[in-house]
Amino acid sequence: MASLMKSFVEVAPGSQFPIQNLPFGVFRPSNGASPRPGVAIGEFVVDLSVLADAGLFSGPVLASCFSQTSLNAFMALGRPAWKEVRSTLQKLLSADEPTLRDNDALRSKAIIPMSQVKMEMPAVIGDYTDFFSSREHATNTGTLFRSKENALPVNWLHVPIGYHGRASSVVISGTDIRRPRGQTSPPEGQKNPEFKASALLDFELEMAVFVGPGNKLGTTVSVDDAADHIFGFVIMNDWSARDIQKWEYVPLGPFLGKSFGTTISPWIVTMEALEPFMCAAPEQDPPALPYLTEKNRKTIDIPLQVALKPEGESKASVISNSNFKYLYWTVCQQLAHHTINGCNLKPGDLLASGTISGPDSGSLGSMLEMSMGGKKEIMLGHGGIRKFLKDGDEVIMTAVCQGDGFSVGFGECSGKVLPAL
Amino acid sequence: MASLMKSFVEVAPGSQFPIQNLPFGVFRPSNGASPRPGVAIGEFVVDLSVLADAGLFSGPVLASCFSQTSLNAFMALGRPAWKEVRSTLQKLLSADEPTLRDNDALRSKAIIPMSQVKMEMPAVIGDYTDFFSSREHATNTGTLFRSKENALPVNWLHVPIGYHGRASSVVISGTDIRRPRGQTSPPEGQKNPEFKASALLDFELEMAVFVGPGNKLGTTVSVDDAADHIFGFVIMNDWSARDIQKWEYVPLGPFLGKSFGTTISPWIVTMEALEPFMCAAPEQDPPALPYLTEKNRKTIDIPLQVALKPEGESKASVISNSNFKYLYWTVCQQLAHHTINGCNLKPGDLLASGTISGPDSGSLGSMLEMSMGGKKEIMLGHGGIRKFLKDGDEVIMTAVCQGDGFSVGFGECSGKVLPAL
Ligand SMILES: [Ca+2]
Ligand SMILES: [Ca+2]
Ligand SMILES: [Mg+2]
Ligand SMILES: [Mg+2]
Ligand code: NI
Repeated sequence: MASLMKSFVEVAPGSQFPIQNLPFGVFRPSNGASPRPGVAIGEFVVDLSVLADAGLFSGPVLASCFSQTSLNAFMALGRPAWKEVRSTLQKLLSADEPTLRDNDALRSKAIIPMSQVKMEMPAVIGDYTDFFSSREHATNTGTLFRSKENALPVNWLHVPIGYHGRASSVVISGTDIRRPRGQTSPPEGQKNPEFKASALLDFELEMAVFVGPGNKLGTTVSVDDAADHIFGFVIMNDWSARDIQKWEYVPLGPFLGKSFGTTISPWIVTMEALEPFMCAAPEQDPPALPYLTEKNRKTIDIPLQVALKPEGESKASVISNSNFKYLYWTVCQQLAHHTINGCNLKPGDLLASGTISGPDSGSLGSMLEMSMGGKKEIMLGHGGIRKFLKDGDEVIMTAVCQGDGFSVGFGECSGKVLPAL
Repeated sequence: MASLMKSFVEVAPGSQFPIQNLPFGVFRPSNGASPRPGVAIGEFVVDLSVLADAGLFSGPVLASCFSQTSLNAFMALGRPAWKEVRSTLQKLLSADEPTLRDNDALRSKAIIPMSQVKMEMPAVIGDYTDFFSSREHATNTGTLFRSKENALPVNWLHVPIGYHGRASSVVISGTDIRRPRGQTSPPEGQKNPEFKASALLDFELEMAVFVGPGNKLGTTVSVDDAADHIFGFVIMNDWSARDIQKWEYVPLGPFLGKSFGTTISPWIVTMEALEPFMCAAPEQDPPALPYLTEKNRKTIDIPLQVALKPEGESKASVISNSNFKYLYWTVCQQLAHHTINGCNLKPGDLLASGTISGPDSGSLGSMLEMSMGGKKEIMLGHGGIRKFLKDGDEVIMTAVCQGDGFSVGFGECSGKVLPAL
């Protein structure tokens, strides 16, 4: 094991936020001051606006990014600026560096216990796109909705299928989710739809990237340049009401079955922090069209876990162990596809992976799949059983990459189901 | 005929922008100053920031709205504020009122020839939703894609179907549209899709509303309150690449076939200006569910026209005469449906009607329908023929309501097709 970079900030062994991670987020201090950008280290948040005011970043451009209430301006700057800030922060926070370590006034102003702040949305999301890039998920849902023979849509192996989602209802981890009401299919033998609270409320285990620099309308981003347009990753729960979705989604796609809420984790883990976890991506057969063919095809080994905590239970039960690396279409392919028609992306746009299901029954990304469309019971600890979510259930998604002597974690993407209005 | 309100500003007979209209937009002055809100009157634009600076609106809230580069803040204020500004402007601009009329310095600063300004996007669009509310359009496209017997999707008469569109690529009238490239279905007898410039580029004649006050996530807007959440209307062209759309849209809906560009007219005509044109909406059978049942069901009589001007031609040929009143689902039903699951709307969100087709062959809202899926030629003037759009074609949509002695018009929603990259 190479000797590891260490910080003067206390970081517990196994912490998700060592100096190797330094994920970006936006937090609201407890004193009522306005939200501002920060990075996580151990159990602390570093207030970037304080470091910027102290002149610790080079130049006025960075300083002005960190005086804003969202990360959009910083995202727009691109990789060279992100790398510069990362290396500045790693130096400032390192065990050997006195600037912050030995300046009590500045340090106590800049480094705040995480327990004293409230996390906010890290960016203003202009547009949110949800993809459908897990072959296992597409096959499982295709089998449920159609048949085993026609499970994968005919275009699936050629098109990284995506659709526009609702940006306004993307919320930060910890926000309660109200069970939606809506129209559902006519009951057996009847002609008219029902109107009711969704009885088939589900989660979808996803990850999502925030777009950095965008592209102008009418231009494209090539698949080999795509990585430079990606700022970093969060965990995402695309809450889904299967009964509402089923009745509405033909012919124009999911709408109210999804738009009542989508939860993301608050800390954006950068591509730089994820570099040690790059791995091979699934081979593609048939080969992708040239505009989707990567010179250097890679993905990231990010172990994912879903736990469910019923109301009143003290412990959450793990119900899935999956991995980001299972996805058939990479983020670079998704981004190149998104722009191939000239569609413009903007800093702060959110591109989600689609539900991540793995090859075995313990690695599924939705209750729809785990319960085989409601035909099978999902066992929780303490004798609890589920087919879909009950009121009071809390869904907790986590993601931790295991490095050589350190972890790079994403924190938590969680939300609790409130009863319908 | 009642005696009509008149302005001291010269308004030609038949002008789309008499004092009865006063639509809102955002314009950029020719002197390089920043964009600001304005209203149209005759061939002039009234600079609302100048009137606000002169203290002609009551209170600091309105003044601060008009010093911004978008109308979002004004939209958020709601109907009482909109009515107040409208009546203040009608008074300030009326023939009998000296305040502006007799103050040469202020008048020449505040009232600028339209030819000297550039129109910009009137609002920052957080989310853009496209509905599918024309029964004739849904039937025509259903017949083309499926069969006459199964033309209307089974949910269509119950659900005001909608889907999320791409907000970033909504552009202002006059913006050129680049023909998109993308994947299209495998040619007859082959297995793999083609990659090419769209050969089936189309327009969609639509109207769209800007949302005023929004609603909080987890709450709903009732169908009878919906009108108070609507600021006003624009004309919209939802450019569509039929070949890209056809290959991608199952199962998650339209994506790259639409997201390369959507054009709106620059002047937002308010609900107040449209009041004289309210009329009965189509009866609904089967009756809508209670949450979609309006106490006072009305729509608006807005005659619409589509003209096509080939490159190099001096005259545009009218190819459709339609009307907003044909739509089966009203804007209030669309808005109530959009929020019934708790989805939050925000000021500046755009809700589009879907393609507006009428009952006869002269009132169709897309070339897909006019050419019956490419089987029939569309005749232009001067011997031109089309099935879909050619490079250099300009599509010009207009809308004018005919009042008793005055017109209320929407200006123009136009765009020209550039060749693919
Ligand atoms: Ca999803
Ligand atoms: Ca449309
Ligand atoms: Mg969702
Ligand atoms: Mg469009
Ligand atoms: Ni009269």
